[in-house]
Amino acid sequence: MQEFLIMQNKLNPHISVDCVVFGFDSRQLSVLLVKRQPLEGDPEPGKMKLPGSPVTDAEDLDRSAYRILRELTGLDRIFLKQFAVLSSPDRLQPPSDLEWLRRTSGMHVERMVTVVYYSLIKINGSPLPLSERSQWVNVDEIPQLTFDHNEIIQRAIEQLRREMLTEPIGFELLPKKFTITQLQTLQEVLLGQKIDNRNFRKRILKLEYIIPLNEREKGVSHKPAQLYRFDKKLYNQYKRNIGSVYL
Amino acid sequence: MQEFLIMQNKLNPHISVDCVVFGFDSRQLSVLLVKRQPLEGDPEPGKMKLPGSPVTDAEDLDRSAYRILRELTGLDRIFLKQFAVLSSPDRLQPPSDLEWLRRTSGMHVERMVTVVYYSLIKINGSPLPLSERSQWVNVDEIPQLTFDHNEIIQRAIEQLRREMLTEPIGFELLPKKFTITQLQTLQEVLLGQKIDNRNFRKRILKLEYIIPLNEREKGVSHKPAQLYRFDKKLYNQYKRNIGSVYL
Repeated sequence: MQEFLIMQNKLNPHISVDCVVFGFDSRQLSVLLVKRQPLEGDPEPGKMKLPGSPVTDAEDLDRSAYRILRELTGLDRIFLKQFAVLSSPDRLQPPSDLEWLRRTSGMHVERMVTVVYYSLIKINGSPLPLSERSQWVNVDEIPQLTFDHNEIIQRAIEQLRREMLTEPIGFELLPKKFTITQLQTLQEVLLGQKIDNRNFRKRILKLEYIIPLNEREKGVSHKPAQLYRFDKKLYNQYKRNIGSVYL
Repeated sequence: MQEFLIMQNKLNPHISVDCVVFGFDSRQLSVLLVKRQPLEGDPEPGKMKLPGSPVTDAEDLDRSAYRILRELTGLDRIFLKQFAVLSSPDRLQPPSDLEWLRRTSGMHVERMVTVVYYSLIKINGSPLPLSERSQWVNVDEIPQLTFDHNEIIQRAIEQLRREMLTEPIGFELLPKKFTITQLQTLQEVLLGQKIDNRNFRKRILKLEYIIPLNEREKGVSHKPAQLYRFDKKLYNQYKRNIGSVYL
């Protein structure tokens, strides 16, 4: 039962939390997966899943999400956002996965509603303290996961793309000082498609909250490009002005 | 046990759905409440609550929400949006409300996670087919409700105000042809505060998706005002253009 560490608290047989943590390393987008606990006679030993667990009777869903990340991945203190609830009565398929859940949880689970959190973090620079069982997997190379976890990741990616249209989530993933090309690469990776350079540059340079600096890249072989920074204050003003025109 | 009609399906002791249905009658904002089922020795007979119920083992949360609205209010086929999950382990307070829940559900409930849906509908014109136990209550005159339902309504109002800033939800509540004053009244009611006429008019007339018509109000004592319509197509273009400037 090491799968769920806080055993002094009863696990809830009906409610779970799953976490989709995206990592951006300035080139590609990955998602954090964990190997499920090996069981004797497991037909699919080492099958992978999202970090998740039934909630305990002592915690609300947010606390549960952070506890799960700590226990299964070693991650802590990252911003998690609740974004979906999957509640189909028959989502615990296939039977072999349900059998695995029953044995590792020690509960006769029949139906589980799962509340899903997601997060987007920078994973270049300082390496994260991940547990042995967890690893980053490129979003284009995700294997067959337990239950409906592939669908959950797909929905998280769609959520990410929706948020990009209304929130400047991307900037947290870039260096403080960035080039237009770095910005474009990020958007292309998050959107999963190429963007026309000329239009992108035009669009970005119009934004009053992206500030050109009197600096250029250093230590590059090609012609060093102009650096920019994101001004959160100006962005918030801009956002308020847009917001106010809706009814 | 009439509180929960679908008794051929087992109720889930851990997961419930509650619905916050807002109604706008062109003057004020109301929320739909139901009298809870009377019980012998109920210390607070007729205490009111949001339409809600534990989910049954056969339904997902969306189906549950529509079933609850039909059963407890008579409402059907309105757009419901899931917007919050309340999961505090000790939200089932006070003890007298918990006792009521245990007796009406026939379950020893200890902890219930509730998923909340909300909706905003027009309630002038054709009256809605409400059940005897349900009634519209002005958002400024809501009594003490069961459990944390007052908090849930407060959070739904905040959600409504957030959405107003990014979605044109208001227009569905107005006649197809409306005056700037009707638009302003609506926004004032939803925001719960007065708005400066001159600025509001200026702001609205700038919006390319609010189309002036060659018509004025009819049958009014005061000088008939210009009528306008909301153009969803132009709005969506406008929204896309705004969306595209974010990263």
